Amino acid sequence: MSLQNDLLLKALRGEDVSRPPVWMMRQAGRYLPDYIKLRNRYDFFTRVQTPELACEITLQPVDQVGVDAAIIFSDILVIPQAMGMTVLMEEGKGPLLPEVIKNQADIDALITTEVEDRLSYVTAALSLTKKELNNRVPLIGFAGAPWTLLCYMVEGKGSKTFEKAKQFCFTQPELAHALLQKITDVTILYLKAQAKAGADVLQVFDSWSGMLSPHDFKTFAQPYLIQIADAVSPHAPVILFPKGSWYALTDIGNSSAAGIGIDWSITPEMARKMAGNNITIQGNFDPAKLLTSPTQIKKEVTEMIDAFGTTRYIANLGHGITPNVPVDHAKAFVDAVKEYSRK
Amino acid sequence: MSLQNDLLLKALRGEDVSRPPVWMMRQAGRYLPDYIKLRNRYDFFTRVQTPELACEITLQPVDQVGVDAAIIFSDILVIPQAMGMTVLMEEGKGPLLPEVIKNQADIDALITTEVEDRLSYVTAALSLTKKELNNRVPLIGFAGAPWTLLCYMVEGKGSKTFEKAKQFCFTQPELAHALLQKITDVTILYLKAQAKAGADVLQVFDSWSGMLSPHDFKTFAQPYLIQIADAVSPHAPVILFPKGSWYALTDIGNSSAAGIGIDWSITPEMARKMAGNNITIQGNFDPAKLLTSPTQIKKEVTEMIDAFGTTRYIANLGHGITPNVPVDHAKAFVDAVKEYSRK
Repeated sequence: MSLQNDLLLKALRGEDVSRPPVWMMRQAGRYLPDYIKLRNRYDFFTRVQTPELACEITLQPVDQVGVDAAIIFSDILVIPQAMGMTVLMEEGKGPLLPEVIKNQADIDALITTEVEDRLSYVTAALSLTKKELNNRVPLIGFAGAPWTLLCYMVEGKGSKTFEKAKQFCFTQPELAHALLQKITDVTILYLKAQAKAGADVLQVFDSWSGMLSPHDFKTFAQPYLIQIADAVSPHAPVILFPKGSWYALTDIGNSSAAGIGIDWSITPEMARKMAGNNITIQGNFDPAKLLTSPTQIKKEVTEMIDAFGTTRYIANLGHGITPNVPVDHAKAFVDAVKEYSRK
Repeated sequence: MSLQNDLLLKALRGEDVSRPPVWMMRQAGRYLPDYIKLRNRYDFFTRVQTPELACEITLQPVDQVGVDAAIIFSDILVIPQAMGMTVLMEEGKGPLLPEVIKNQADIDALITTEVEDRLSYVTAALSLTKKELNNRVPLIGFAGAPWTLLCYMVEGKGSKTFEKAKQFCFTQPELAHALLQKITDVTILYLKAQAKAGADVLQVFDSWSGMLSPHDFKTFAQPYLIQIADAVSPHAPVILFPKGSWYALTDIGNSSAAGIGIDWSITPEMARKMAGNNITIQGNFDPAKLLTSPTQIKKEVTEMIDAFGTTRYIANLGHGITPNVPVDHAKAFVDAVKEYSRK
């Protein structure tokens, strides 16, 4: 059966749309009262690993905010976990990986087989959500990018500088590339399994790519993003989101990726100029603007779409929605896109 | 008496130099064992407010690392403090301002008179350091940019998003501009006093400007940076460092500022192209590279100077040096610039 709302897929194919599709990064989660109720009852990995809970959380913003796509509730660190690393998640504190990757032996010890089995809770959640969505809107699957996962696997936690991860890459590039390739191989299998389980679109989050210089991005991030896009695109359109890496827009624009996410540190005009016309741009509303007022949000969203145009564009935030956003403000963001009409 | 080493001033005037000048942001501090000894004996504000201590810390990297300029040991938050706000500094934890700016009354209550008197410990430290330097190298004074100071004054502490500060600006722009103008007025007086006390160059740190979109930067950051550059430039050359705001390079390049600092998220070629040839570019080595090895540091520094060229360029990091950098690695950075010779 075909999708009732396939705006997202049309936008990613560059087809004509009456208005851009809209969804919000981190739309399933923390700002929604119904999510907070579940968070108070189940710990993080229970929510992620129980298909019924992940499905329920995924559907909340579709039902309550009216987005044009669902994105599966999960976490980028399920990959390091499936590869055998311990990942601890303390509510509101960020992740902790107590045993970090330091040498060849640590890399050799990573598990790369039966990843689909080890992550069957994600594919089960996708299948269940696909069924529950009943073709209302497309379902987005996702994974963390190899560079961003390396950051956590080497640094062991969030960081302002990720200087341990960088030191590892800069002083032991062969080891870094071995690790990045292992993550890439596993991620490709994982994303293909997500497509098979029902994901219509796949997004790759390179949350920390902007901490790399253009040269280092080309060395440690871009080749692996491109590998993933090339391998996975035949199965579902891929959106790459190398946050902060505006300098990579031209290269990514020429890749097999169907879409590229951008944050708000670049104008729509400059982003389009750099990315070219063969890729769909997704973004780039500053989530802090969701703290203003529904009226102001609608005004600024309209200006954003005016600037990006309606072709090859997906309205989204430039980063995840933050916990303090009132639900009616999130709804104003979505409604503004839905009410947009070309002059 | 004239300076024995005036490379920095020459570079800021666009004059021909045999090699670029070099200094490092945060060069006075945390990675130096002699600094750590003082830190263990005196608390933060004692170190900042005692001219003899500030002078001693300022001279350490000149004597021990061989940089081409001294930058006075101080903090950007001395301005909110001089304006009457409480600023707490817990070692290794970042600043805390327990009573934040929320409304017009809070702004009205800020002190803007006798700022030079209230900050006489900084001018005393500059005079003493100028004397102790004995014209070996230029002395750099500095201040925080109005937008970055607003971030702390409204948010009350460091933040990943500074969303309270942004919310304040986006929802109450008149109040935000009133606050930014007050900070600007005080900062101009403060920087002029620094020049009078012996600062040869003045740098303005806009550490959080990159969190703003190009449009919001032009609204809440750039006008105040330009006001400061215009008012202070007749007294000493000004370097503006709007970290992360690569998109502003062209506008700043056309301003009265003598120099612009950049981080490593832009190539030297792109930075020069955007900034034009009428401003000196300062940067942009990734501080994490200082964790590699002296050999690798020297190789990459040479490549960086090759790319920037020796004209209208100041070799520096793209952000502050981090505590884990070995002193001989910092020295390798400086030595590599000093040993650079044009092919």
